[in-house]
Order: sequence, then C-alpha cells, then structure tokens
Amino acid sequence: MSKSRFEYVKQFEQQTDTLLLPNCFLVVRVDGRAFHRFAAAHKYRRPNDERGIGLMNRCAERVMREFPDIFVAYGESDEYSFVFRRNTTLYSRRQFKYLSYVVSLFSSSFVYHWKEFFGDEELQYAPCFDARVVCYPTLRNMRDYLSWRQADTHINNLYNTCFWALVQQDNKTPTEAEQILRVTDSGAKNEMLFTQFKTNYNELPAVYRKGSVLVWERTEEGASVVTLHEDIIGNGFWDARPELLKGQQD
Amino acid sequence: MSKSRFEYVKQFEQQTDTLLLPNCFLVVRVDGRAFHRFAAAHKYRRPNDERGIGLMNRCAERVMREFPDIFVAYGESDEYSFVFRRNTTLYSRRQFKYLSYVVSLFSSSFVYHWKEFFGDEELQYAPCFDARVVCYPTLRNMRDYLSWRQADTHINNLYNTCFWALVQQDNKTPTEAEQILRVTDSGAKNEMLFTQFKTNYNELPAVYRKGSVLVWERTEEGASVVTLHEDIIGNGFWDARPELLKGQQD
Amino acid sequence: MSKSRFEYVKQFEQQTDTLLLPNCFLVVRVDGRAFHRFAAAHKYRRPNDERGIGLMNRCAERVMREFPDIFVAYGESDEYSFVFRRNTTLYSRRQFKYLSYVVSLFSSSFVYHWKEFFGDEELQYAPCFDARVVCYPTLRNMRDYLSWRQADTHINNLYNTCFWALVQQDNKTPTEAEQILRVTDSGAKNEMLFTQFKTNYNELPAVYRKGSVLVWERTEEGASVVTLHEDIIGNGFWDARPELLKGQQD
Amino acid sequence: MSKSRFEYVKQFEQQTDTLLLPNCFLVVRVDGRAFHRFAAAHKYRRPNDERGIGLMNRCAERVMREFPDIFVAYGESDEYSFVFRRNTTLYSRRQFKYLSYVVSLFSSSFVYHWKEFFGDEELQYAPCFDARVVCYPTLRNMRDYLSWRQADTHINNLYNTCFWALVQQDNKTPTEAEQILRVTDSGAKNEMLFTQFKTNYNELPAVYRKGSVLVWERTEEGASVVTLHEDIIGNGFWDARPELLKGQQD
Ligand SMILES: Nc1nc2c(ncn2[C@H]2C[C@H](O)[C@@H](COP(=O)(O)OP(=O)(O)OP(=O)(O)O)O2)c(=O)[nH]1
Ligand SMILES: Nc1nc2c(ncn2[C@H]2C[C@H](O)[C@@H](COP(=O)(O)OP(=O)(O)OP(=O)(O)O)O2)c(=O)[nH]1
Ligand SMILES: Nc1nc2c(ncn2[C@H]2C[C@H](O)[C@@H](COP(=O)(O)OP(=O)(O)OP(=O)(O)O)O2)c(=O)[nH]1
Ligand SMILES: Nc1nc2c(ncn2[C@H]2C[C@H](O)[C@@H](COP(=O)(O)OP(=O)(O)OP(=O)(O)O)O2)c(=O)[nH]1
Ligand SMILES: O=P(O)(O)OP(=O)(O)OP(=O)(O)O
Ligand SMILES: O=P(O)(O)OP(=O)(O)OP(=O)(O)O
Ligand SMILES: O=P(O)(O)OP(=O)(O)OP(=O)(O)O
Ligand SMILES: O=P(O)(O)OP(=O)(O)OP(=O)(O)O
Ligand SMILES: [Mg+2]
Ligand SMILES: [Mg+2]
Ligand SMILES: [Mg+2]
Ligand SMILES: [Mg+2]
Ligand SMILES: [Mg+2]
Ligand SMILES: [Mg+2]
Ligand SMILES: [Mg+2]
Ligand SMILES: [Mg+2]
Ligand SMILES: [Mg+2]
Ligand SMILES: [Mg+2]
Ligand SMILES: [Mg+2]
Ligand SMILES: [Mg+2]
Repeated sequence: MSKSRFEYVKQFEQQTDTLLLPNCFLVVRVDGRAFHRFAAAHKYRRPNDERGIGLMNRCAERVMREFPDIFVAYGESDEYSFVFRRNTTLYSRRQFKYLSYVVSLFSSSFVYHWKEFFGDEELQYAPCFDARVVCYPTLRNMRDYLSWRQADTHINNLYNTCFWALVQQDNKTPTEAEQILRVTDSGAKNEMLFTQFKTNYNELPAVYRKGSVLVWERTEEGASVVTLHEDIIGNGFWDARPELLKGQQD
Repeated sequence: MSKSRFEYVKQFEQQTDTLLLPNCFLVVRVDGRAFHRFAAAHKYRRPNDERGIGLMNRCAERVMREFPDIFVAYGESDEYSFVFRRNTTLYSRRQFKYLSYVVSLFSSSFVYHWKEFFGDEELQYAPCFDARVVCYPTLRNMRDYLSWRQADTHINNLYNTCFWALVQQDNKTPTEAEQILRVTDSGAKNEMLFTQFKTNYNELPAVYRKGSVLVWERTEEGASVVTLHEDIIGNGFWDARPELLKGQQD
Repeated sequence: MSKSRFEYVKQFEQQTDTLLLPNCFLVVRVDGRAFHRFAAAHKYRRPNDERGIGLMNRCAERVMREFPDIFVAYGESDEYSFVFRRNTTLYSRRQFKYLSYVVSLFSSSFVYHWKEFFGDEELQYAPCFDARVVCYPTLRNMRDYLSWRQADTHINNLYNTCFWALVQQDNKTPTEAEQILRVTDSGAKNEMLFTQFKTNYNELPAVYRKGSVLVWERTEEGASVVTLHEDIIGNGFWDARPELLKGQQD
Repeated sequence: MSKSRFEYVKQFEQQTDTLLLPNCFLVVRVDGRAFHRFAAAHKYRRPNDERGIGLMNRCAERVMREFPDIFVAYGESDEYSFVFRRNTTLYSRRQFKYLSYVVSLFSSSFVYHWKEFFGDEELQYAPCFDARVVCYPTLRNMRDYLSWRQADTHINNLYNTCFWALVQQDNKTPTEAEQILRVTDSGAKNEMLFTQFKTNYNELPAVYRKGSVLVWERTEEGASVVTLHEDIIGNGFWDARPELLKGQQD
C-alpha cells in the first residue's frame, strides 16, 4: 500500500487556508448555536443567568491563558470576542489555526467547567458554537468593533429587562410585552423600569449592563487574567490601561 | 449610546468568510492539539488505546448525526475527517460555519462522553483540536483523500506496533528501536513481528490497522450511523454501497 | 538609503494572491468596459460589426498562442472566455498571474491590431476590459459554462436582429421596438423575421448566431489556432474532437 | 435553446472574486512581462531610456485620470504602482475589478501612445503586464510600500549606472563589470562614478534616481495630474502636500 500516490491531495489545502493580513488586529468571535433552545433546556434564568455568564467567562479565561497574544476579550449573552495583538505571528497567521483552536478550546471548556457553575443542573447535551475570524486594520476599527458589541449588550439588556419585567411582574403575554416595547425608545424604557417597576436601570449589576471584559494584569508574581464590567466605549478604560495598546498604535 | 455608528464594522467580516466552491466535496479534518502530551497525561495505552478510539468514534457519530450532509467520516489516531456531500448548500457554503460547527461539537462531545470510555481515569484538562476545510473537485480526488488518510494509518500503525514491541517486549530503548526500524521496509516489519514477536500483523484488530469509517445505514426504522473498520482504498467498499455516491458522480 | 527596513511590505501580497484550486478548469473571462459607448464612438455596425468580431478573434488568438494551456476559447459581443487545462501548473496557479496576463495581452493586442480591421476608422481612445477568473470542478460544469455563454449569444443575437430590423427597416423607435419584443418568445421572433423581414434566422452568418470558438489544430507542420462558429452546447462538437478533452476526464 | 439550465455556473464566480478589506489602502502594481526581451527588441537605451519612461508615465496618467480614487502613483523601470484611497468603495471593493481595469487600461494605453514617444521605432509586438492588488492597513505601511519601491529604484539605478559605465566607457565585458561591482557598497559605487567616470551621481537626472511620482493638482480651473521626481521616503514630500493624506489618517 503506497501512500505516495495519494499525497498530492495535501496541496488542495492551500487554497482555503489563507494567511490573515499582517498588522491587522485579529478578532475571533464565538457564538452559541441555537442557544435559545440550550437556555430553555437548561432552565437559564431570565433575562440573565449569572451561572451561564460565569461559565462563559471561565471558558474565555481558559482560552486567553492558552493564547497570550489575546490582549482583550469581550463577552455577552452566548458570544465571546477574542482580540489578538495586531503583530501576532502565531501559526504564520493561518486563519484556520486561530479559528479552530479558539472555538475548540472554548467548547470543550464549556463542558469541562459546567458543573462548577451549574451544580446539579445536568448538562443535557454537548453544546456547539460557531466562530469567525475578522481583520481590523486600525486601532479605531478595533475599538469600534468592541464598542459595537458593548452597545449591543446595552440595547439587548435594556430591552430584555423591560420585557421580562412586563411578563414576570406585570403578567403580560410575550406578545403584549413585545407590542408595548415596540414603540419605546431608550429613555422610555428607563422611565418604565423606574416608574412601573421601581428599578433604577443603572443600579442593576454592571455585569448585565456592560458585559465582561477580560484583560491581563501583570504583577510581580506573574500575569493573570482579570474580569471587568466596565464601559469600553469611551476613552477612560483605555487611558487607564496604557499597556493594553502599547506597541499597537497605528 | 448609539449602536449605529459602530455597525460598519460588521462588513469587515465579508473579506474572510468566503464561500466554498460549489460542486466540490467538502472535507473538514480535525486533529488533536499536542496529543502526544494529552495521551501521556491520560495514560493512553500504546500503541493504540481502544478507549481513546471509542471516544473519538462516539464524537464523530455525534457530529454526523447533527449534520446529515456528512455522508462518510474517517478517523485514526487523534484526527477525524468529515466529508460533506458535494452538493450541500448548508449555510450557503460559508466556510467558517462548516469549520467551526464541526470542530466545536467534536470538542465539546469529547469532554461530554469522556467518562463513558475512560471511567475512573479523570480528564485532566479541556482538550483542543485544530480544524481545516478543504475542497475536492472530483470523486477521484475525494477518494484519494480518504485513501491518503487510510494509507497513513497503515504505515503509522505498522511502525508503532514494531516500535512498542521492541521497547516493551525486547527491552530496547526508544532510540535503539528507532534505529532498528529506520532501515526496514514494510515487508521487513511484517517479518520482524512474525518471527521475533509471534505476531501476525494481519490478524491484529482491524480497528487498529484500518481506522474507523462512519457511514449512514438506512433501514425501515430510520437512519443510523454505523462504524466500520474496512479497506476504503480499493473499489470493494464503494461498490458494495452504491447509495454512498448516488447523485455524486462527476 | 536602506531598502531592508521596508522589505517587510512584500509579505502583505500573500493575503490576496491566492492559489487556484488544483484539478479545476480555470476560466478567465474578459469583457469590454462600457462598450455601448465604445461601439457608438467607433460607429460599430448594428447589431453585429464583423470588423469588431474579427478584431476580438485576432486578440484571442494572440492570447491563446501565448498560453498554450488554453485549450478552448469562446467569444461573443465584447467578451471572451479562455479555458485553461484543468491540470495547468503555470505560475503555481497564482490567480493574479492568469488574470492579469490574459487581460493585459488582450487589451494591448486590441490596439495593436485595430488598424488591420478598422482601417481608416481611427481609434479614439485606449479601450479597457475587466476580467475575472473562475474555477470549474468538473467537465460538466466547464461545458455548462461554455453552453451558458453560447445560449446568451443566441438569445441576444435573436433579440438584437429583430430589434434593429424593426428600427432600421420598419422605422420603429427604440422604445416601440422594445415594447413589441417584450411579449415575444423565441418562436415568435423567428416568425417575425421570416414573415415581416423575409429573413430566415438560421441562414444568417453562423458567426453572429454561434459566436466564435477557438481551438488548437495540430498538423505535421505544427500547431495552429482555428476559429469556428459551431454549436458547442450539444455533444457533436466535443465528440468530433476527442483531443480537446484528452487527459481531462473527471 | 434554454439558457436557464446553465445559469447556475454564474455563482461559481463568488468564490474567487473576493472583496478587499475595508479601510486599507489598495495598491495595484503592474510590471512588464519579460521586459528584458522587450527592451532589447526595441533598442531601449541603457541604463535608462527616457522615451520608455515618458510612455510609462503617460499610461499611468491615463489610468489615474480614469480612476480619481487613485491619489498617488509611483513608477520605475517596467513597473507602476497605483494607490487607491483607503476609503474607496468603487465596485464594492471587488478585487478583480481594480486589478483588471488598471492593468488593462495601462496595457492598451502603452500601445495607443507608443508612437508619441518612440516615433519611427516600430512596436514589434503587443506588450504584456502582470498585476497584483495588495492591501495596506495603515498609513505607515502604505508609505513604507512606496519607500520600498523608491529604495529599489535607487539601488538598481546606481548599480546600472556603474555597470553600463564600465561596459560602455571602460570596455569591460558584462561578466567583468558584474564581478567588479559585486564587492562594492553604495559609497564605493558613488566614488567609482566620480573618480573614474567624472560623473556626480547626484547630478544625474532626478527621473532616473527617484523614479516618477504622480499626484493630483487641484487649481481653480480643475484637477490635473502632475509628474514629480522627488524623494518620497522622507516626510518632506508628504508634509508639503497635506491634501494627499487628508481624511486618510489612521
Ligand atoms: N434565559 C437566558 N437566555 C440567554 C442568556 N444568554 C443568552 N441567552 C439566549 C437568548 C437568545 O435566545 C440566545 C442568543 O441569541 P442568538 O442571536 O445567538 O441566537 P441563537 O443562539 O438562538 O441562534 P444562532 O445559532 O446563534 O443563530 O441565547 C441568559 O443569560 N438567560
Ligand atoms: N499512546 C497513544 N498515543 C496516541 C494514540 N492516538 C494518538 N496518540 C498520540 C500519538 C501522537 O503523538 C499524537 C498524534 O500525532 P500528531 O501528529 O497529531 O501530533 P500532536 O497531536 O502531538 O501535535 P499537533 O498539535 O497535532 O501538531 O497522538 C493512542 O491510541 N495511544
Ligand atoms: N453596435 C454594436 N455594438 C456592439 C457589438 N458588440 C458589442 N456591442 C456593444 C453592445 C452592448 O452595449 C455592449 C456589451 O454589453 P455589456 O453588457 O458588456 O455592457 P457594457 O460593455 O456597455 O458595460 P460593462 O462595462 O460591461 O458593464 O457592447 C457590435 O458588434 N455592434
Ligand atoms: N535598457 C533598458 N532596459 C530597461 C529599462 N527599463 C526597464 N528595463 C528592463 C531591464 C530589466 O531587464 C527589465 C525589468 O526587470 P524585471 O525584473 O521586471 O524582469 P522582466 O520584466 O524581464 O521579467 P518579469 O516578467 O517581470 O519577471 O526591464 C530601460 O529604461 N532601459
Ligand atoms: O498536521 P499537518 O501535517 O496536516 O500540518 P498542519 O497541521 O497544517 O501544520 P502543523 O501541524 O505544523 O500545525
Ligand atoms: O448564521 P447566522 O444567520 O447567525 O449568520 P451570522 O453570520 O452568524 O450573523 P450574525 O453575526 O448576525 O449572527
Ligand atoms: O516580481 P516579484 O519579485 O514581485 O515577484 P513575482 O512577480 O510575484 O514573481 P515572478 O516575477 O517570479 O513571477
Ligand atoms: O460590473 P458589473 O455590474 O458588470 O458586474 P459583473 O460581475 O461584471 O456582472 P456581469 O457578469 O453580469 O457583467
Ligand atoms: Mg449568528
Ligand atoms: Mg447564538
Ligand atoms: Mg448570540
Ligand atoms: Mg497538524
Ligand atoms: Mg495532533
Ligand atoms: Mg494527528
Ligand atoms: Mg459586467
Ligand atoms: Mg462590457
Ligand atoms: Mg459584455
Ligand atoms: Mg515579478
Ligand atoms: Mg518585468
Ligand atoms: Mg520590473
């Protein structure tokens, strides 16, 4: 049985496994497949389940520790974004390596750490995440990417908080709640929460409103990953941590 | 907080998430990252650990049942190849979807089913797999791809069987074993096993010599995935299962 | 002035200059940019100008002689398709090389040979062509590609023949002609030509109805390119020239 | 003859015709194919033929006027680089459109304008250029690209000036000249020209030493393309023309 006459098929790999453009920030975003079903099957609390969030953050930390070229990660809902340093040369910037390693380790970690967060709530089936890798040429583009995700968190969370208040506390049907919210802007939603449900939206846990930001913290004992729930849209976050973008200016 | 001024970043995704060429067979191959270390850390038996093989096959079955457009899969060592029907239009043939779903589900399944195969051998850490997607234009190319992997199984397994016989039964050091084998061809290795170790290579379990082939079996009760350990290089396998390539001729 | 510190920019080329999938037929199609304007500016005859066709064929022949891996080419209107043998390894299958060489040589030839076909009709400005390269995995796909272009020729030419007959011989305005033709199928158009304009469509020159097909003819004196105006949709053309597809079966 | 059953082949185009990453500078570089032969066949003067340079510049100007999103172009020897504004959205950033239009128009213009520069020196055959398109994420990368090309001009021109002085004035054979120059650095080459050939390298025409830079000049009467022969590696050139990079900062 000679292997050599089949080996030509290896070269077909070249066409798909392209190299990511140098000097771009590389973002890998993973997102749970059909997580509406997964959340329902595992009795996720609404609108936010802190067990689920804790597990996602744990998986992201695992990924980040494995790939120190990730300098910031951002998570919300069933998704997580990992940003690699723009000058990373890991795997010669082969796109498939970044994509597959990140989503694979995230997925296996999700099962591995499940019990630490969900205790007696049994995992019903192995979950699945999609992933994509995207290039961002400038600092501005990369920051706008993260801002896009955090603005998404804000909008979804404000909506979901109102929605479930209407359903759970005001006994509205999902359809009624949806109709009520369809005509409200951001201000009206805040107002509704405050007046009708005695809830000051800005006093809800930051983890729900801001999502989770993972960065490296370097001390004398070594480097560790810390989880923050802060605004990353404004300059404050970045100005306070100059090491994040050091060597990454345009 | 307006989301709209950040939304432009979404369009950067288009550049990397390309569509796979129509009418090609699509192969997704996953391969364990640093599995020499993983095997050592989990006391995998040498040269083949049937628990590990059983687990890999279980994961592959899970993937195949999730994506019925996979019509054949082939596994050996720490890798698995999944072949999608050439006319699949799943996810508009977006390469990232195929790649990420397969490797994600395979990885999470690996942890999910670990205990069923390894019992008291505790999983030490979440494993990680890489993945790639490759296009093959013709039936011949696709079959040569599978033949390439099975020929690889044969060569590696024959080598490893000799190597570990020399080390475990003949008390050679790994370096000595390597030196002895360096000058042997396939015939000499068979001969060594037979003469020196009273082993008829061809009578070793087919799962070690041939790897694992997964195909769909359709009966009146429905479709199920069956695991075979047969030669897929010759025509016999394919001729006996005309439904495999039905509608997939060039 | 040191060059070395700038040389890193060369590697950015890798990301765009990808390799075309092996074993696929490669088609490069060129198409004149804004040729409605070019045709008007150079008083092209309507609906077909044999000078223009002759020039296009001359350019295509030049391209084909330069790249003998092109085994068939097909031209109509302001476009030309060049089909490279599926096993070509020219330029390691770098897509940019195929694309640029073909469109460049076609374009420069267009000016170079202009006078031979248009005589005293002065070339007003340098013309411009776009180009694309497309992969076709199977013989069937490649033949369907050529059939697609020849079916296009047929449909456009039948329409244009009717349109200009109505305008030139029946004094209809373009808008009137368009309205008349909007409700006619292929049969009705043939009928109109025959009854109203005493024209048997099938007796019009084949070059208008079938476009131009370029293939290699090998005789004892050597190889030359011949220009045909035949049906290439049916099997006849291909069966009569077995050397065309020799070594190119799936 | 139905066209519809063939139309599926159009979608195969999607796989190759990818979109260039937003916010990157796009560079199209064209380079003459086998111009050593072309130069010999048309008796180009050595080491620089101002007729050839004039013609190249004329073609580049034509391209630039056709695509005003090109804000700077740089030419030397048988090559020309065209830099599109980073925010260009021409043709939805389809890579094939940029590549093919630029190289096609450049090539046809070369023949169209030949006689204006070469007079009685007949064009022997239609020339051919390759082309590539490259993305540069930042201003620095784009400027380094242009610096790379201009440093190349300097090195080649200094070498060629010495080489042809040795051959033409000192009656060395090409092999001898090459051997002499092999061991010289930049300083030694300048010295040799000055001492042995009474030539002050820095007083040679700037067009040979610096290549040609094309930029837009906007006056009250409108915009026109101007040809410069200046250093573009240092900041001076860019600082003196702030409009070039306006709106293109990172
Ligand atoms: N109850 C609950 N549901 C959550 C939580 N986090 C995420 N989810 C659910 C709500 C959404 O239905 C879903 C995320 O939305 P996606 O747009 O990703 O949709 P989904 O994953 O269903 O489909 P996909 O496969 O991503 O297209 O996950 C949570 O903390 N609590
Ligand atoms: N003892 C033992 N080892 C196995 C078995 N199956 C696979 N392995 C190990 C042997 C090899 O070192 C490794 C597979 O080789 P690879 O070429 O994939 O290398 P590895 O995964 O170490 O590195 P990679 O990240 O894939 O480049 O997995 C098994 O059944 N028993
Ligand atoms: N009068 C005349 N016109 C012709 C002849 N051959 C081609 N043309 C013109 C008719 C069409 O307007 C044009 C080809 O159509 P296209 O779809 O390629 O459009 P056009 O080149 O104008 O735009 P484009 O830049 O390709 O999108 O060329 C001819 O023999 N005689
Ligand atoms: N005598 C003379 N030769 C020139 C002039 N400008 C360019 N050339 C020639 C010298 C080089 O042989 C050639 C450009 O070098 P390239 O590296 O582009 O090589 P070439 O075009 O031969 O091959 P290629 O197809 O680009 O790989 O053009 C000129 O002004 N005078
Ligand atoms: O494992 P191979 O040989 O298919 O090669 P690769 O995975 O592309 O490369 P590597 O294993 O070195 O990451
Ligand atoms: O698969 P879909 O429809 O979710 O498509 P997507 O590319 O994942 O889109 P999004 O980023 O909106 O989830
Ligand atoms: O000319 P180079 O050095 O940019 O390289 P290339 O054009 O990519 O390669 P070649 O000239 O050998 O076709
Ligand atoms: O540039 P267009 O609009 O002509 O787009 P295209 O890809 O050239 O389309 P077609 O093949 O229909 O000319
Ligand atoms: Mg999605
Ligand atoms: Mg989801
Ligand atoms: Mg989601
Ligand atoms: Mg590998
Ligand atoms: Mg491995
Ligand atoms: Mg392996
Ligand atoms: Mg077009
Ligand atoms: Mg056209
Ligand atoms: Mg056309
Ligand atoms: Mg070159
Ligand atoms: Mg050249
Ligand atoms: Mg050159």
